[in-house]
Amino acid sequence: MSVETIRVDLGRDLLRANDQVAAENRAACAATGTRVLNLMSSPGAGKTTLLEAAIPLLGRLRVGVIEGDLFTDRDARRIARLGVRAVQINTVGACHLDARMVARALPALPLGELDLLCIENVGNLVCPAGFDLGEDGRVAVLSVAEGSDKPVKYPALFRTAQAVVINKLDLLPHSDFDLPEVLSVLRETNPAAAVFPVSARTGEGMEAWCRWLTDFAGER
Amino acid sequence: MSVETIRVDLGRDLLRANDQVAAENRAACAATGTRVLNLMSSPGAGKTTLLEAAIPLLGRLRVGVIEGDLFTDRDARRIARLGVRAVQINTVGACHLDARMVARALPALPLGELDLLCIENVGNLVCPAGFDLGEDGRVAVLSVAEGSDKPVKYPALFRTAQAVVINKLDLLPHSDFDLPEVLSVLRETNPAAAVFPVSARTGEGMEAWCRWLTDFAGER
Repeated sequence: MSVETIRVDLGRDLLRANDQVAAENRAACAATGTRVLNLMSSPGAGKTTLLEAAIPLLGRLRVGVIEGDLFTDRDARRIARLGVRAVQINTVGACHLDARMVARALPALPLGELDLLCIENVGNLVCPAGFDLGEDGRVAVLSVAEGSDKPVKYPALFRTAQAVVINKLDLLPHSDFDLPEVLSVLRETNPAAAVFPVSARTGEGMEAWCRWLTDFAGER
Repeated sequence: MSVETIRVDLGRDLLRANDQVAAENRAACAATGTRVLNLMSSPGAGKTTLLEAAIPLLGRLRVGVIEGDLFTDRDARRIARLGVRAVQINTVGACHLDARMVARALPALPLGELDLLCIENVGNLVCPAGFDLGEDGRVAVLSVAEGSDKPVKYPALFRTAQAVVINKLDLLPHSDFDLPEVLSVLRETNPAAAVFPVSARTGEGMEAWCRWLTDFAGER
């Protein structure tokens, strides 16, 4: 059967105002020497589990976390259990964080005491990629269970990430995920990105990922 | 550590115009006796695979598919391979389908020859739930690999679904997914929803799910 394709064009004007606030966030964090990461993924790719697994391995690095979620504070409570300062932003239905939300959360954090601020965005491969939060780097997290086609289907996120974490590597034997193909697609679409296949559950690959986090936090 | 929570309020005015077009879509499909389903899930939960596995089991039911994706026509091509009429909507970056996009796709389908029209939304647990496309029923697809907390974290989608498909049941032994807990949460938040634990990959549970689809298509 033939396939017909209909293309829809949308304006992107609302991003201008966001960029100004993002620049202010970036300046505020740079002033205290805090490096900021924006973590993005589908729902359930394992962003929070990845932070839970990484934070205890980061040694003396002083980490703070901003959690974005529609309604709950489940993720911030998980992070706070590690003894790490966590602020929850509830977007009350909005599908992404924006710079204004982060600006409201920053005063709740002791920025002067933090080397690294991780912002966990709302679980969504589309909208978060369009909004600069004031981060110094972006991390795209992809779960093995999501399938190999995601970097092609959601290019905005994967093209703008400094690092891509391929999580749930322990599910590789039980899925059709084609790791060599995904690595090849990522090399083509975003050759500068560092790629880390890991399992936050088993710890596989976490050492290299944590080394990247430590290096990133030290780039001041 | 304590958790601070910041709530953000957003307006929802833009939905009014959508509702009018959705009503027109619904009327157009009702006029030809075509029942319409809106399938929603995270990226990679397996919506297309679920359709690929179900369509050959639906016997004489005449099925058409509208595929929503940001840029590619991969999913429509997968469906067309089954000999089923498939129309691809490219949202060009937009994170959800809306009624206007579906209205533009409907003329490309032979509605009078279709019993069931499945609309596969953009992979996203948030935004699609806010937009009526003119469907007669909504299906939320949740993958076992996404974790048990998704119905609580993304309530709008799971509360408004007539059916919830819990896919990738073959990954259950390899994940922390708590099926009894999720079933209990769904019973509480959406007691009217029919729930189908399935594996589109192994075929487990597909018979009950296809029976529901057939019954749904017959409700005219």
